Amino acid sequence: MMNAVPQREDILKAHELIRPYIHRTPILTSTFINQLSDAQLFFKCENFQKIGAFKARGGLNAVLSLSEEQRRYGVATHSSGNHAQAIAFAAAMVGTKAFIVMPDNSPLVKIRAVEDYGAQITFCTNTPEERERTVQKIVAETGATFIHPFNNYAVIAGQATATKELIEDIDGALDMIVAPVGGGGLLSGTSLSAKYFSSTSKVYAAEPEGAADAILSFKSGSIQKAPYVKTIADGLLTYLGDKTFPIIQQNVTDILTVSDEEIIGAMRLLWERMKIVVEPSGAVSLATVLKNPEIFKGKRIGIIITGGNVDLAKLPF
Amino acid sequence: MMNAVPQREDILKAHELIRPYIHRTPILTSTFINQLSDAQLFFKCENFQKIGAFKARGGLNAVLSLSEEQRRYGVATHSSGNHAQAIAFAAAMVGTKAFIVMPDNSPLVKIRAVEDYGAQITFCTNTPEERERTVQKIVAETGATFIHPFNNYAVIAGQATATKELIEDIDGALDMIVAPVGGGGLLSGTSLSAKYFSSTSKVYAAEPEGAADAILSFKSGSIQKAPYVKTIADGLLTYLGDKTFPIIQQNVTDILTVSDEEIIGAMRLLWERMKIVVEPSGAVSLATVLKNPEIFKGKRIGIIITGGNVDLAKLPF
Repeated sequence: MMNAVPQREDILKAHELIRPYIHRTPILTSTFINQLSDAQLFFKCENFQKIGAFKARGGLNAVLSLSEEQRRYGVATHSSGNHAQAIAFAAAMVGTKAFIVMPDNSPLVKIRAVEDYGAQITFCTNTPEERERTVQKIVAETGATFIHPFNNYAVIAGQATATKELIEDIDGALDMIVAPVGGGGLLSGTSLSAKYFSSTSKVYAAEPEGAADAILSFKSGSIQKAPYVKTIADGLLTYLGDKTFPIIQQNVTDILTVSDEEIIGAMRLLWERMKIVVEPSGAVSLATVLKNPEIFKGKRIGIIITGGNVDLAKLPF
Repeated sequence: MMNAVPQREDILKAHELIRPYIHRTPILTSTFINQLSDAQLFFKCENFQKIGAFKARGGLNAVLSLSEEQRRYGVATHSSGNHAQAIAFAAAMVGTKAFIVMPDNSPLVKIRAVEDYGAQITFCTNTPEERERTVQKIVAETGATFIHPFNNYAVIAGQATATKELIEDIDGALDMIVAPVGGGGLLSGTSLSAKYFSSTSKVYAAEPEGAADAILSFKSGSIQKAPYVKTIADGLLTYLGDKTFPIIQQNVTDILTVSDEEIIGAMRLLWERMKIVVEPSGAVSLATVLKNPEIFKGKRIGIIITGGNVDLAKLPF
């Protein structure tokens, strides 16, 4: 396991390690959305990634970095869905056991996907504290290695590879990259890759108003919880960790918030105009760009579409 | 306008002509769907094409092939949706007028998209005969050039470019290519490109049971109408034309039919597992592959995902 903030070489190594197991996802553009935003947007489609989300990258890097001894006892984690699938998938790839704690209100499609990888699921009520408690119990009982969904340097280095590919696959430099922030695994990885592989790209974070902990933490200088938690973007409910927060503080230009109505509007736009299935958390970045033309107008902007794991029976439109 | 079956050179020329206006759409794969079908499937995602469907290709090639004189009076067509958008889009690109006859039960999202390109819409009841009559009236009044949705060699050559790209962008040869059949524009173009650019690839056609005219025509040797027309795949309601039918007869290996239930199942699979928005007509090919393992098992198969223009308020799941 990595014990320090990932350096350039760590992200290169992570990419080599996970490359055989992941898709190099395409980057899509839309004339309509470019006109609407008056900017040039490049969508890195991690909804097409293995398990339907970027989290396959971090999960794979963490599990592939385990020692032989550690692999014998398996891995454990808690997650609202995508990280659960990522760890279940990664464990299946290397032939180790996966113990997954999932909130009891997780979308059915995500539960089924975790089951399909042969992981063992334990349900708990959906609070960060309860998830943590449940997974610690499992770790104590089984000897499995706990892989935190975001507050883990190997996970961060894995998530960083999405932005590395984005930068490599676009002709010309990006002015900005926008990524959503929940616990900050993707965001901190994004900001590191931007620094190491495209020094001219600023990184902005997009956060739901109904889970506005990161913006408070960023402005106050210490990790804060959200004043209230209520948003359709169920992948972004958690607060920052002591590993993700300093990276974000140092490398992110600003954090901006959007309402659920704005998230749903952006999500609908991505479905109708780009013809891609995107989960609410994956539409938060576009919502932020559309809301703040004074920042984003005229710019070349990379946008991480984080995932596409939605329950088709429960669409907000 | 082209007056004979497109040759290799005609398709090369069409591709050069339309290239500046179209997306080179990505080809996606899914481990899950490969396992389910026990085959290797390569999905050519024309749902990401301009106007959300492959028909942008044929429309552009037809409009870009007009003389200066013809352009002055504009173009006219009838279509259940995607060809309407294609002609409206192509006309906007070259700065000519577009007169579009649309069935009065067309999805709202398709009507709006045609309006957005500045085309003039005339509605009619949804029968092939009524569409034909209405558009002939408009042509007589305006002097516009009629561009048939499929029974037109320039349109066929344009549609053929999707398969040309599919063949060029895949490492190794395809055993088969599967395309849906309505009027046969895509299918005839697909079969020509397979012949010219990948002589080892057989072409299969996929048709809804509720619009089973092509299979009857193919088996009987003369153009037939469907015994009844009732299917969710609203892009495939029409019957073959005297230009598409002979090309299909000569170059297509077989035509297979699927039920609406099978189409909806394949559509859901594409949405849930591949995270792409696909219209029912675009899922007919996958439904056909899943239904006929005795033909498709173990093969490398190219599948044209034709379009993604659905009304999100009217999903079948």
